[in-house]
Amino acid sequence: MRAALLAGLWVLAACASAPPAEGQTAPRSMDEIINAAPASDWRDIAPENMLFMRLANGGTVIIELAPSFAPNHVANVQALARAHFWDGTPIARSQENYVVQWNGPDEGQPASRGAAQERLEAEFARPAAGLSITRLQDPDSYAPVTGFADGFPVAGNGERAWLAHCYGMVGAGRGDTTDSGSGAELYVVIGHAPRHLDRNVTLLGRVLQGMEHLSVMPRGTGPLGFYEEGAARPMISRIELGSELPTAERPRLQALRTESESFRDVVESRRTRREEWFVEPTGRINVCNAPLPIRVAPQG
Amino acid sequence: MRAALLAGLWVLAACASAPPAEGQTAPRSMDEIINAAPASDWRDIAPENMLFMRLANGGTVIIELAPSFAPNHVANVQALARAHFWDGTPIARSQENYVVQWNGPDEGQPASRGAAQERLEAEFARPAAGLSITRLQDPDSYAPVTGFADGFPVAGNGERAWLAHCYGMVGAGRGDTTDSGSGAELYVVIGHAPRHLDRNVTLLGRVLQGMEHLSVMPRGTGPLGFYEEGAARPMISRIELGSELPTAERPRLQALRTESESFRDVVESRRTRREEWFVEPTGRINVCNAPLPIRVAPQG
Repeated sequence: MRAALLAGLWVLAACASAPPAEGQTAPRSMDEIINAAPASDWRDIAPENMLFMRLANGGTVIIELAPSFAPNHVANVQALARAHFWDGTPIARSQENYVVQWNGPDEGQPASRGAAQERLEAEFARPAAGLSITRLQDPDSYAPVTGFADGFPVAGNGERAWLAHCYGMVGAGRGDTTDSGSGAELYVVIGHAPRHLDRNVTLLGRVLQGMEHLSVMPRGTGPLGFYEEGAARPMISRIELGSELPTAERPRLQALRTESESFRDVVESRRTRREEWFVEPTGRINVCNAPLPIRVAPQG
Repeated sequence: MRAALLAGLWVLAACASAPPAEGQTAPRSMDEIINAAPASDWRDIAPENMLFMRLANGGTVIIELAPSFAPNHVANVQALARAHFWDGTPIARSQENYVVQWNGPDEGQPASRGAAQERLEAEFARPAAGLSITRLQDPDSYAPVTGFADGFPVAGNGERAWLAHCYGMVGAGRGDTTDSGSGAELYVVIGHAPRHLDRNVTLLGRVLQGMEHLSVMPRGTGPLGFYEEGAARPMISRIELGSELPTAERPRLQALRTESESFRDVVESRRTRREEWFVEPTGRINVCNAPLPIRVAPQG
């Protein structure tokens, strides 16, 4: 009995409790929807928009950059990666329920910025025009509009749109002035979405794979979760662009197009829970709770 | 310049950019509000409602139980703690962006449940009547009403109220039937609030201190983040009630009363950001982003 209880905890696979009546079709599970999505609903992630972070402990984190939201910051991050700016540098900060951040070489250490700028104008938001947003119908605490565009969670107000600070989103740290960030200092959200940062910092991408290597980094004991002097800091072996990797080493990742019917169905499968375990199907969803499916491109 | 940039990242202390005009008062920072709160705005956390979890790695996690929401589950957890049910048992599960969970002794191992029941009727929600909810004014994706009651984040629909699955909330795992949980299997939310679990599982408390010991546990590599056979599992040395500890060893923790004016001011200080760093003050907040201040009771 006990084993069944434990095994049954949040088993999310669809278990139809009764066969559908004639003329009805059983709601599909998220996995069924994803597996049935036509090839045209998947997009290849461009190698130049993939950032590969190799940690000294062997973990790999893959980030997708978002040039349609932060073109200048993305170009700067690409230049920094080409210059191997972050190779052999430490994680600077791991703050509980907030962010993990890396800042490049320590002060006084040589730093190669290549063609990158030292500071950039903020890219906090962009015109909504020209952006195809797959909108969510449920209210959001922080913005009149939420949804997905070009594979990223977004918020907006009709006129403007911006990336939303969801779990796994990547941003460019900045100082007190809005033009003091450059993408050299990057943070990843590892806690409940700090949406009050929306439109206060430039977001430029999201983690596609490997969040579990960042989220478990021991929290820094200094203010804001910075590692204190003398503390062991997790180290970055290298950060490079997918386009700089030998073709054979590039994982051929694809993301489900957030403008596709399959993606809408995926979101609805998580919005209204049909699995037998759920007694309250919810029928609502927040932009930061929706999955953004990725896969390795099938052979051939 | 660079050092200033780094030091300036998210320094959240209030920096008034200009002196307030005559007749105006400068908005107070969260810390100022907390420090100025009168003694009557603080409540002692009852020792019998504090669960002390000592991890084998030296970390301590302190949980506050919520008898006004899940009286039967809380009584069961108290009975299990008195019986030392979890002492010397492993963490069962660490699932990325979701939960850490412990289930007591492995199957086939001796288990002492004391006076605890093996299964309990669900306590997913309660009547809103009799509960004083400090309501938030901003919309929520999941419920018509959100706010705080008795020190916990809550959601509701006017008739019923329930604890909300925010970061750090503690719940009772269950199997497929709603009466299959007992509090013997406990989980803690370590990722973005999985609010679709609201009214599907019994929540019974929240972590007051020590989340950073749970959130960094290596993710399990089995399905649902369970540690696989043979994997090193973090171990629990013991879990005991505050009321079972020698008086001298009980930390005298206090929580800011969520029905107090000070708490309303704290929430507003996070809802509308006045610090110089923020260019977009937001003016909105989600129930899972509000802080729930605690402190050690002052001497005397």
